[in-house]
Amino acid sequence: MRNKNSAPTMKDVALEAGVALGTVSKVINGLPVGEPYRIRVEEAIKKLNYHVNSYAQGLKASKTYTVALLIPNTYHPYFAMLSYQINIALLKRKYRMLLCSTEYNPRLEQEYITMAQQNKVDGIIGLTYNPDLIVDDNVPFVSIDRSMGPKIPCIASDNFAGGQMAAEKLADLGCKNVAFLRIGSSLNNEPNKRKAGFENGCLSRKLPYSLKILDDGEPLDEFECFLREHMHNGKLDFDGIFCVTDRTVYDVRKILNKMGINVPEDVQMIGFDGIQTFGVGDYVCSTIVQPVREIAEMCVELLLQENMTTKPPLVCLPVSYMYGGTTKEFDK
Amino acid sequence: MRNKNSAPTMKDVALEAGVALGTVSKVINGLPVGEPYRIRVEEAIKKLNYHVNSYAQGLKASKTYTVALLIPNTYHPYFAMLSYQINIALLKRKYRMLLCSTEYNPRLEQEYITMAQQNKVDGIIGLTYNPDLIVDDNVPFVSIDRSMGPKIPCIASDNFAGGQMAAEKLADLGCKNVAFLRIGSSLNNEPNKRKAGFENGCLSRKLPYSLKILDDGEPLDEFECFLREHMHNGKLDFDGIFCVTDRTVYDVRKILNKMGINVPEDVQMIGFDGIQTFGVGDYVCSTIVQPVREIAEMCVELLLQENMTTKPPLVCLPVSYMYGGTTKEFDK
Repeated sequence: MRNKNSAPTMKDVALEAGVALGTVSKVINGLPVGEPYRIRVEEAIKKLNYHVNSYAQGLKASKTYTVALLIPNTYHPYFAMLSYQINIALLKRKYRMLLCSTEYNPRLEQEYITMAQQNKVDGIIGLTYNPDLIVDDNVPFVSIDRSMGPKIPCIASDNFAGGQMAAEKLADLGCKNVAFLRIGSSLNNEPNKRKAGFENGCLSRKLPYSLKILDDGEPLDEFECFLREHMHNGKLDFDGIFCVTDRTVYDVRKILNKMGINVPEDVQMIGFDGIQTFGVGDYVCSTIVQPVREIAEMCVELLLQENMTTKPPLVCLPVSYMYGGTTKEFDK
Repeated sequence: MRNKNSAPTMKDVALEAGVALGTVSKVINGLPVGEPYRIRVEEAIKKLNYHVNSYAQGLKASKTYTVALLIPNTYHPYFAMLSYQINIALLKRKYRMLLCSTEYNPRLEQEYITMAQQNKVDGIIGLTYNPDLIVDDNVPFVSIDRSMGPKIPCIASDNFAGGQMAAEKLADLGCKNVAFLRIGSSLNNEPNKRKAGFENGCLSRKLPYSLKILDDGEPLDEFECFLREHMHNGKLDFDGIFCVTDRTVYDVRKILNKMGINVPEDVQMIGFDGIQTFGVGDYVCSTIVQPVREIAEMCVELLLQENMTTKPPLVCLPVSYMYGGTTKEFDK
């Protein structure tokens, strides 16, 4: 008889359903089993209020050697490179990777978390902007760029240091009046520290600065208005601009060109990410480079690490500056 | 007793090993099972010369709802977009996708094919340049860009039509003497038809043309030598260049700039692929666009199609031309 005080086990389900233990396992794992057996097992699971979780906990040793990656898409070059590096880091360790392009769909994200709870994958690496996503403490999960609780490691670039580096670089390059332009989520995430780091760098170098921050979805015209407000006698007030991403440099540079302002002659620009043309060519702009390979390795290391009682809640990895044509320190 | 004339079944293995059928299934599927049972099952499999394949064939209905994608990497923007679109096409149908960045590693490719043979994935979509890759006829496989035998569908852009379209476009744009530049595998694959299509287009428009083809790994300097050989009185002989990929346009344009030749003023250029900046922005050059979403949908459709006795061996999907700044038909 089952001890009424402890959580029901798979064995209890088998006894209740009058089937073999293997049949219960098959139902739980979605393997083929006769329809009458499936129904009996499912009814027993309901009746005993059996949680697949207890199965998962009891069988942690039975690995699937599969890890799921949740990422908004793989066509943005940063996500593309990150997916590649995580894939390579996993393959090196003989792990397979399920790719889930979430397109910010919370249902899909939650589905993969359920798979991890049911032990169908060994863990999840997730880059998600979903503030409502609930990840159980006992689901092996590593988050990129957004902290999801003290027990879930979050891996990111050192975004604060990167923002500061951008400010200091613009100061070194002779800028006297700079701006920070951001589009993006007001969520509490690591990339948001770029702004604070930038302000800190400007203050320490006594470099005057302005900020313009758009919410997701706000039109880029807002940047144009902001820039036009800072035009005097046909010249832009700023001689340096730090953008929150390389993509923003690309968009703002087009606006500036339209306004007759040349980059880098009239205004120098630094982005963030380190996007290279075709993934391997020139940097698309001067930029603070995220250490993608190191981020990928750290995610995989921490996810698969089993002999660690306390995993680090936040890991910030060092960034670097690379020239990419939108600053004046080099001759092309 | 087992009929000695037919291939052994999983039941035969269970009888031989003295275990339940479910135990054999678990061993074959890599699920946890007591060590003594595993050994008995494995010995029975050996003794009977049981092929997992017969299991796979007998249980085609037991789906894993998982498909593997073999692709060299995901950081090249074309591969990145293709991975994304295939991922989305599978997720729409409630299928999971294992991503395998092969980096042209034949061992990895063959491993995933073995997984498919053992019914651990429902099928494979592969973009591989490995001429030695062996894919069994009974492994559900769809190939992108390279024919792998009459029973394996190959999905590609209509590369011949694309090459022809490029020639005709250059003629329409007023070019009088054009060149085709290719870097790339001499393998027998679909993209190689771009050259034949281009020649056909030039001939039909009576447009004189030259060809320069580099092998994989040959230095780009070879293009520079070729172009310098075609300089007379400080002017390039060609007023139009078709490159085998957008990436080649990017590389050759840098060479031309170094030589003091301006694109599109002195020479117009058309590439192939349809790469957009950051995956969603402007086309990086004027280009023949591959229909990535349609290619992805067709791959998934044909792979998962079960009620089809004869699958089409080669599907060519229509391409289109898009302006991207390296030709003269539009004002920017």
